[in-house]
Amino acid sequence: MTRMASQPDARQVDHAYRHAPLRGVVDLLVNSYQADPSTQHINATFLPSRARVIEFIECLRCLTFPGFFDEQRITDANLREHTERRLKHIDHVLYEQVRQALRYALNRDADGRGDDCDDCDRVAREKTDAFLKRIPEVRRLLSTDVQAAYDGDPANTHPDEAIFCYPGLDAIFTYRYAHELYKLDVPMLPRMMTEAAHNDTGIDIHPGATIGERLFIDHGTGIVVGETCEIGRDVKLYQGVTLGALSLKGGHDRWEGRKRHPTIEDGVTIYGGAIILGGNTVIGRGATIGGSVFITESVPAGHTVTMKQPQLNSRPPREKKTNESNGL
Amino acid sequence: MTRMASQPDARQVDHAYRHAPLRGVVDLLVNSYQADPSTQHINATFLPSRARVIEFIECLRCLTFPGFFDEQRITDANLREHTERRLKHIDHVLYEQVRQALRYALNRDADGRGDDCDDCDRVAREKTDAFLKRIPEVRRLLSTDVQAAYDGDPANTHPDEAIFCYPGLDAIFTYRYAHELYKLDVPMLPRMMTEAAHNDTGIDIHPGATIGERLFIDHGTGIVVGETCEIGRDVKLYQGVTLGALSLKGGHDRWEGRKRHPTIEDGVTIYGGAIILGGNTVIGRGATIGGSVFITESVPAGHTVTMKQPQLNSRPPREKKTNESNGL
Amino acid sequence: MTRMASQPDARQVDHAYRHAPLRGVVDLLVNSYQADPSTQHINATFLPSRARVIEFIECLRCLTFPGFFDEQRITDANLREHTERRLKHIDHVLYEQVRQALRYALNRDADGRGDDCDDCDRVAREKTDAFLKRIPEVRRLLSTDVQAAYDGDPANTHPDEAIFCYPGLDAIFTYRYAHELYKLDVPMLPRMMTEAAHNDTGIDIHPGATIGERLFIDHGTGIVVGETCEIGRDVKLYQGVTLGALSLKGGHDRWEGRKRHPTIEDGVTIYGGAIILGGNTVIGRGATIGGSVFITESVPAGHTVTMKQPQLNSRPPREKKTNESNGL
Repeated sequence: MTRMASQPDARQVDHAYRHAPLRGVVDLLVNSYQADPSTQHINATFLPSRARVIEFIECLRCLTFPGFFDEQRITDANLREHTERRLKHIDHVLYEQVRQALRYALNRDADGRGDDCDDCDRVAREKTDAFLKRIPEVRRLLSTDVQAAYDGDPANTHPDEAIFCYPGLDAIFTYRYAHELYKLDVPMLPRMMTEAAHNDTGIDIHPGATIGERLFIDHGTGIVVGETCEIGRDVKLYQGVTLGALSLKGGHDRWEGRKRHPTIEDGVTIYGGAIILGGNTVIGRGATIGGSVFITESVPAGHTVTMKQPQLNSRPPREKKTNESNGL
Repeated sequence: MTRMASQPDARQVDHAYRHAPLRGVVDLLVNSYQADPSTQHINATFLPSRARVIEFIECLRCLTFPGFFDEQRITDANLREHTERRLKHIDHVLYEQVRQALRYALNRDADGRGDDCDDCDRVAREKTDAFLKRIPEVRRLLSTDVQAAYDGDPANTHPDEAIFCYPGLDAIFTYRYAHELYKLDVPMLPRMMTEAAHNDTGIDIHPGATIGERLFIDHGTGIVVGETCEIGRDVKLYQGVTLGALSLKGGHDRWEGRKRHPTIEDGVTIYGGAIILGGNTVIGRGATIGGSVFITESVPAGHTVTMKQPQLNSRPPREKKTNESNGL
Repeated sequence: MTRMASQPDARQVDHAYRHAPLRGVVDLLVNSYQADPSTQHINATFLPSRARVIEFIECLRCLTFPGFFDEQRITDANLREHTERRLKHIDHVLYEQVRQALRYALNRDADGRGDDCDDCDRVAREKTDAFLKRIPEVRRLLSTDVQAAYDGDPANTHPDEAIFCYPGLDAIFTYRYAHELYKLDVPMLPRMMTEAAHNDTGIDIHPGATIGERLFIDHGTGIVVGETCEIGRDVKLYQGVTLGALSLKGGHDRWEGRKRHPTIEDGVTIYGGAIILGGNTVIGRGATIGGSVFITESVPAGHTVTMKQPQLNSRPPREKKTNESNGL
């Protein structure tokens, strides 16, 4: 559409009107960025990237379960080439992110020493290699989780179903890889990974937790597993279970390095909504914790703990009921 | 950037250094894939696709609620053409996915008979057609759910709000279509659909459940509705409600075909966090179940069941309180 | 592939076979759209867009926390230009969406008066400008939330972690901006925004709630904060907390404008799974509400309310336990 320059029309007036107030807001924002460094990273050379971390997870998923999520058909003929291409991409993304994260953490915690770090790239290389070497073992662990999801759920028609559609398996998948980076002392990335899984699944497993083989999570929404949790083999967790800390007084210094979350021994089952708190709480081998139970003390091996059914009031209808609604 | 071949620089050294360990990991992974067939689909000709299932759901949403989510404006003039184009696309994606799923299931469960199945494409065609013919009826059911979301929620300003932004309606939407494929005995796809909705909404409705008209789900995060649940008309469910199974001993064989989840009759309201378990548990017509109630037995029609308020300890402040924190 | 026209092959037959039933479904659907206007927007000129609302949120996130999520490095040299470009884009998207939403609401609630609204674009301009001017203040509030997330969580290694990966901060972020549009009486968009955050985080904060500085949400999945909630400064909420309404009888008219949800005063901590209901319920300054507590009455300032531990049944193992499973 052509317009004559001498005839400002409604659109042009509107445009001018629109951008006058914008300039004032730009000034306010720029001042605000400069006044409060805690919510910006202006001039930062090194930063981890949420988008790249998600790309890394998706690429690991294809590498771990070849055929399940690939666009291209995987065959014996292209398997080695496919695997190498995936692994190179993972290596590329991870090395770059570890390098960013190491230098970022030094800049943040050691007064800008990250930019000039002589050692950081070599250390990033070593940590990346150490991670890559662990992929086959993580794959083996995940294979036990897949089998556990089939064995533990009558609604599951085949172990494949866990990989194709169980959020519990998705959360364990991301946790197991994030835990490897956590053990390698990589800053920030492990937590970014498990929070990406938390977003997708509603299951919040801290990468610091240690978890044995054959974990089965059913439904899973609302599960919280804290940083210093220790979970054995063959454990089952249902939706809404919290393995958390007791109320903590004091700040970061006081709790540094202390075990704040429970220990769950082999073969324990914990039903929906149960809350188990405290670093000294141990749920003994083979115990069963009933739905909605609230526990802050240890349970001996083999015991079954259920709520003594709280008394219910059951009231018959008194009159013609009107329509009820609840308006949260 | 040109480099002289005789002068390996830091980048080239780094590159060589990087790829030596990769080769070892590739070997380990390829061996691991070949040793453990349970977590790979190498050489598979037929597989369902998570990405295509999600595409199918989004396309169904546009077809079901024309105008709400389309990029293009829908008018009387383009309505028929638009509908036909959408439906053809849905037909195309669904037929292909059903065909994949049928052959995949035969390969998996019947020793590779899926690749040579003479009948599979015809059956896929029939199931796809049967599904397509059900779309108008599912649309009618969803229209009752939309109205129920308005009638049941004082915070809802218009029925449109349910379609534009209620996760409960999103979950019911996907469930109702997945249930149609479940009734048609299509393998894997129904569960993949409802788990995609579970990821988005935190609401986990198994496609095998049967649910009447005018279901209203408010907030919804954490809701679990099991495979053999039967839910009547005009039912309201709030966040965190579980309609689940009692603890089950024994494996898949024992529970095959048995009703494991409760029956909820017409007009029942179940408030947040209530847990109702067991295949013989019936919540009678018009009953109200209070928040956080734990029920494993039937409730007569019209009754209101609430927790007898568990005794609370209320402790006044003893001294100057220090800052408290909880460190899950 | 060329085919001779006189030799219909299997594929062509299949194609013809496929599209015959489609025509019937198209007819049914077109009739169904025309018969039920409540689930379509055919011929609508003005509609809000879920996709554009999500784009708006992501763009606001980059503007609010420069450097954290940008593809491009932000420096002092490009900061002003970057800020201006972001803000113009936000202005562009928001003005268009507010304009659509205002006219849409008039069409919906006032018999099509939106299409011819003389005033709507001017009002949309004013509301958009008013929103833009609030961005620096919202940024300041969010900065207090970021600090609170660090102070309140021993597992948090640096305030940045809240921005990079805490779903609680993501939910508060979207709520605080949605609340600004809510105060400006913009229809539909505020709720679409908070439901987008609900999808991502499992945290459901109604844009009508009022929330003071330094809110800390840990884990967060399953949290519900109702429309008329009032929350003070320095409040901590854990996963699964409901701040909701008591059961409501009667429809929209009866509850219009009434406070249905609780008041939470400054410095209150509410642990996981606690349910607090009712518009007259006030949790006094500095009080602590224990996990899973169910409250419908006010709590005095400074008090700590915990559940009197419901009696638990703990049963030792009786015999060789068989494998247990739960088949939701």
